[in-house]
Amino acid sequence: MSKLRLHIAMSLDGFVAGPEQSVDNPLGIGGMRLHDWAFPLASWRKPHGLEGGEVNASTPIVEEQLANVGAVLMGRNMFGGHPGPWGPKPWNGWWGDDPPYHTPVFVVTHYPRPALPMQGGTTFTFVSEGIQSALEQAMKAAAGQDVLLAGGANIAQQYLAARLIDEVNLAVVPLLLKSGARLFDNLGPAELGLEQLRAIEAPGVTHLKYRALR
Amino acid sequence: MSKLRLHIAMSLDGFVAGPEQSVDNPLGIGGMRLHDWAFPLASWRKPHGLEGGEVNASTPIVEEQLANVGAVLMGRNMFGGHPGPWGPKPWNGWWGDDPPYHTPVFVVTHYPRPALPMQGGTTFTFVSEGIQSALEQAMKAAAGQDVLLAGGANIAQQYLAARLIDEVNLAVVPLLLKSGARLFDNLGPAELGLEQLRAIEAPGVTHLKYRALR
Repeated sequence: MSKLRLHIAMSLDGFVAGPEQSVDNPLGIGGMRLHDWAFPLASWRKPHGLEGGEVNASTPIVEEQLANVGAVLMGRNMFGGHPGPWGPKPWNGWWGDDPPYHTPVFVVTHYPRPALPMQGGTTFTFVSEGIQSALEQAMKAAAGQDVLLAGGANIAQQYLAARLIDEVNLAVVPLLLKSGARLFDNLGPAELGLEQLRAIEAPGVTHLKYRALR
Repeated sequence: MSKLRLHIAMSLDGFVAGPEQSVDNPLGIGGMRLHDWAFPLASWRKPHGLEGGEVNASTPIVEEQLANVGAVLMGRNMFGGHPGPWGPKPWNGWWGDDPPYHTPVFVVTHYPRPALPMQGGTTFTFVSEGIQSALEQAMKAAAGQDVLLAGGANIAQQYLAARLIDEVNLAVVPLLLKSGARLFDNLGPAELGLEQLRAIEAPGVTHLKYRALR
């Protein structure tokens, strides 16, 4: 069975981005530090087209995250650039010509836009029919593999509130950001039970894995 | 060197108590479930005057929490009963005649009150001169041992914001409470750096330990 898996880095106080996100500061003030544990890893560098790097206790976690992924889901704010209509010279993502996804990526947005093929196997498809439709399209594209929900907070909250997520993977970083985008907020009235599957300590991060009980 | 150690159970979404705390529901709706992992443990039952119980991966964590503790600090809301002046028949705590602390306990409150000796070595001392004074009194009483900060959220926030905590120990429970008392909130402007010391997986809980960088 294909799963919808959330993988996201979170500060100890629950933020997945700092305050004042902008084109110059996509993860908000201090937010980039949420990923400091990942940048040196060979397993992070490879899909980004970079050679070399470290192997440590985070390596099998990152490899597991990237394995058996047939499609990626993300929110419009994570795709980035600016809110609102796309305009005549639309934003093409943070990631340059060869984004690190190498699969179909479905971007949930209020604003329709033609699909955007990139190099390296990534195609951005813009879904303006809501999260359920985006998930269905991603699952179809994944063809039996899993769908990775990459963030950000808002779209993760919507999928959590709708009880559509199968697995929650958190990289908990020893930072107190104090403000920004909280992951676990606006979860709505539905009960969402979680079963703890695993906790792995690694340099500068703890990897927590939960299964949603449905 | 004596340390001020925070030990507290927190839901995955960051709450240390649920909503609508009351005399009938001291940890708020759903909040008691934050401690479900602890209740069966022999190491939890013993200081509560109960025999028997389990041994599991949480046992050394609870033993470490209880070792080398010379005094306990808590906030008025954790001591409980009601907010405001103590009144003619004041509340004597949730814990009966023989509270599980067995050390001096310093309760930070706006309302002065004579010390309250209990059975089994626990004496509640009510400190109305602020958190700094309460810490000094607790450190003096601890006589070289550590001071355990037991909660709740409000007093923990005050000590975190004042950068007076040496160690943050969290029992992260796979629950989404969605509302209640958030631990990491109202932290003020001071930068509080944390070094991750340890992550331990145990049945129904993950134990995280951090050192404050000062």
